[in-house]
Amino acid sequence: MTKQLHLQATSSANGDFAPGWYVVAASNKVETKPKPVLLNGLPLVTFRDSGGQSRALLDRCAHRNAPLSAGRVVSGNIRCHYHGWEFDGAGTCKAVPGLCAEPDHPARRVPSFACRDSQGWLWVYSEADTDPDSEPYEIPFADQAGYLTIRERLEMPGPLDAVAENALDVPHTAFVHAGLFRKNKDRRPIEVVIRALNGGVEAQFIGEERPKGLAGRILAPQGGEVFHWDRFLLPCIAQVEYRLSDRSHIVTTAALTPRTPTVTDLFATVAVKVPLPNAILRTVFKPVAMWILRQDIEILRSQTEQVSRFGAEEFASTEIDVLGLRIKKLLREAASGKTSSAQEERRIKMLV
Amino acid sequence: MTKQLHLQATSSANGDFAPGWYVVAASNKVETKPKPVLLNGLPLVTFRDSGGQSRALLDRCAHRNAPLSAGRVVSGNIRCHYHGWEFDGAGTCKAVPGLCAEPDHPARRVPSFACRDSQGWLWVYSEADTDPDSEPYEIPFADQAGYLTIRERLEMPGPLDAVAENALDVPHTAFVHAGLFRKNKDRRPIEVVIRALNGGVEAQFIGEERPKGLAGRILAPQGGEVFHWDRFLLPCIAQVEYRLSDRSHIVTTAALTPRTPTVTDLFATVAVKVPLPNAILRTVFKPVAMWILRQDIEILRSQTEQVSRFGAEEFASTEIDVLGLRIKKLLREAASGKTSSAQEERRIKMLV
Amino acid sequence: MTKQLHLQATSSANGDFAPGWYVVAASNKVETKPKPVLLNGLPLVTFRDSGGQSRALLDRCAHRNAPLSAGRVVSGNIRCHYHGWEFDGAGTCKAVPGLCAEPDHPARRVPSFACRDSQGWLWVYSEADTDPDSEPYEIPFADQAGYLTIRERLEMPGPLDAVAENALDVPHTAFVHAGLFRKNKDRRPIEVVIRALNGGVEAQFIGEERPKGLAGRILAPQGGEVFHWDRFLLPCIAQVEYRLSDRSHIVTTAALTPRTPTVTDLFATVAVKVPLPNAILRTVFKPVAMWILRQDIEILRSQTEQVSRFGAEEFASTEIDVLGLRIKKLLREAASGKTSSAQEERRIKMLV
Repeated sequence: MTKQLHLQATSSANGDFAPGWYVVAASNKVETKPKPVLLNGLPLVTFRDSGGQSRALLDRCAHRNAPLSAGRVVSGNIRCHYHGWEFDGAGTCKAVPGLCAEPDHPARRVPSFACRDSQGWLWVYSEADTDPDSEPYEIPFADQAGYLTIRERLEMPGPLDAVAENALDVPHTAFVHAGLFRKNKDRRPIEVVIRALNGGVEAQFIGEERPKGLAGRILAPQGGEVFHWDRFLLPCIAQVEYRLSDRSHIVTTAALTPRTPTVTDLFATVAVKVPLPNAILRTVFKPVAMWILRQDIEILRSQTEQVSRFGAEEFASTEIDVLGLRIKKLLREAASGKTSSAQEERRIKMLV
Repeated sequence: MTKQLHLQATSSANGDFAPGWYVVAASNKVETKPKPVLLNGLPLVTFRDSGGQSRALLDRCAHRNAPLSAGRVVSGNIRCHYHGWEFDGAGTCKAVPGLCAEPDHPARRVPSFACRDSQGWLWVYSEADTDPDSEPYEIPFADQAGYLTIRERLEMPGPLDAVAENALDVPHTAFVHAGLFRKNKDRRPIEVVIRALNGGVEAQFIGEERPKGLAGRILAPQGGEVFHWDRFLLPCIAQVEYRLSDRSHIVTTAALTPRTPTVTDLFATVAVKVPLPNAILRTVFKPVAMWILRQDIEILRSQTEQVSRFGAEEFASTEIDVLGLRIKKLLREAASGKTSSAQEERRIKMLV
Repeated sequence: MTKQLHLQATSSANGDFAPGWYVVAASNKVETKPKPVLLNGLPLVTFRDSGGQSRALLDRCAHRNAPLSAGRVVSGNIRCHYHGWEFDGAGTCKAVPGLCAEPDHPARRVPSFACRDSQGWLWVYSEADTDPDSEPYEIPFADQAGYLTIRERLEMPGPLDAVAENALDVPHTAFVHAGLFRKNKDRRPIEVVIRALNGGVEAQFIGEERPKGLAGRILAPQGGEVFHWDRFLLPCIAQVEYRLSDRSHIVTTAALTPRTPTVTDLFATVAVKVPLPNAILRTVFKPVAMWILRQDIEILRSQTEQVSRFGAEEFASTEIDVLGLRIKKLLREAASGKTSSAQEERRIKMLV
């Protein structure tokens, strides 16, 4: 396991990696045919065994290091395409073709990773050969009665913390998404309450008007007061919750998986209740969401490219960067094994 | 500034970088719309402010490091496209949209670089936040009466010292430009005087015949004695001056700007007086010059690729390499802050 | 020579490099026109001098490091295309155009490498400026009466030891070449004798049946007992010999030349005697061999990519990996100057 841990250390040079459950694929994309995924730079292979259970192994045959994802599943075991070695879902070697002795041997194991199919996603525990004492995050309101639930996978060109900050950041919306959410004029002060959560942090926005522009008119055609929370939860959840009157409620939960130091997979689950027929909602929602996301992808790419040209981040922050530094601190503490016991609750003013 | 200085150190691994004034663009290409340039590996953004003055800042927003060159100029300030932070031409933060407090703060400054529009070029001083005690180099004969002045920008695939040596080197012309300048036969000895200049070095060629081949026939159709000087002046000037009788005079001044360790921008100013109508001169000059330059670009590319395959230069020199080692020494001394007080004057023989 | 030796050390980071004779080209491809080759990461230039003798120099002009392979041969010397310096086949500087003094000088030498044209190949000795006390390997049965001899050059995407192991490995054939050689069913135990050779190692397979599938039917249409040896000989020979009855004999000798840490040139000489007309043999042999080789190239590429993703090999072996670890050990010892005096002879069982 030494090599493997070393690889993890190398690949997270640009950011701190918090151990835990990460989404690596949509559950319905995990089939008997093996598929490669990258979790924090670590090549894994996923497949379904003969019992239909999803499995994740290190994508490296113990023998000559060929990728197991280029092989196939035979009787529930994954077979390497080079010399035909076979491994079960726990990584135990079950066949060494040509060998007269027994195939099973500690040196012939492939590290395996705990898997769960939950709420439409395949979650993998980031630490090899571990029986985790927690379960994957439960996404609120997903598939609940009255909620339309939309799932989407996106590739975001930035490290996890930059993607999380971008997803949970209010001030950029007036510029990157000018006209969709907010505008850079007629700003009024609102109150922001920043609260430490258990393994996370939340910002609540009080006094915000219905978002100006197109997105606001879709989400709350009748206007009214807005309740808005942005949350980050270790190791990988970025969540935006809007409640506009009793009839409109939208919770966007992004499970973020670092693929490489500068690319993060974003697995979004959007649970929406709005006073619109689902058919119309589906028609309108996707193009608007993709329009917003393309703008965020563009800004993340240019930020990430510039940081990598300079070799490192050099950020200045103000108090209205309510979550960015707190996310970095949570990740840094989790990466070094510390648990934050901060009970912070802070109130600031922001012009929106 | 620590990160920035570190970047400069890294990017000049292949060569020594002398602080001073460098050309980064043609003045008429600097507009209100921000544009990125690279000066010795350092990303800068250039723009014209509301007073029409050219400005250069580090191309990195102090906030989240997005490239300012992707933003736009509003009321003379450059505005970042991510969160709308604004900076004036001196790098002072003038706006943090959404923040109730004042935007200006030392941690929110962007390093700025002194700028001059001079003789058709935008010159930038390489050291951030400095009020230079010198002015940019004045290019002789440019735009003077009787001189046709031609300006051209080229990308040369080599480090500054290799490009300067190539531009000022006589022996290669018989091979790389065979038939245009000189030939590798019927050589006769001439005298070369090598003189230290103030922050530079000059080679004067005495007894040279009119260049053989096409270029010679264009420059001095009537033949006659040739006066020829090659000069290098810190930090970045390579100059070739030919005087052929009273009626022909050509001064080619190349301002060399290292972009990366292996790419140098060459901003050439050619001031020509020859007994030919300007219309004909313009017609003939450009294709011949580009033909020569393409040959130099090809040889520089193959030299630079081979040096990088081997990891470092390993040069042997003879006395007819009159300027190469002297240029390297001047750059090395300037990079380490020393001023050469050498008063060398040396005479050698060379067969041309 | 310091830089050069340093380069060799760097480029063999992925594997041990044994000094000795290596093939770098087919003899009939070496002409007066200089050509670049890579030997263990080291750029060399090959050419034929005026006496028709093949020559190999370091592909770097002693003057300004331009590649000599971009120049041309004049009166048997290679002339650099930058300043026209000339070097003879021993690397001595014979001309510095423009210089009044003598060209020859120790600092102006280019390292040279011993060359032999032998059995259709140009062999180069890997150590510069050395008069080797050995001659290149003599390929058995090549061009002998009764043997059709086929030569082929291939680019293999892997380090030398991985390519050699792949070429000499029995167990992979049932998977990578399923149906051509062997099948992964109805396996029977055979005996394998592993013998240390002088500077090499050999595996002899006893009791093997005629290879199942198409290749077997071509090589031994009449069936019968199979004699089969796989051999590795320092520094670069991988050899597979099959003798099926008196009438069929095939010896495939691969001379392996590391080009880069992950690319190996394979120069194959196949000497075949089978009870088939040469015309038919030529027609059938090439497509079948290329089919097999494409499968090996694919598996080597996926193995090499995966090793480089993980940063290093992490191999587990069993006793039926009869040659892999022994090849690595031979290379490691040869690279560090040791001579193995192992007299090993070991017998194991393998199911084929």
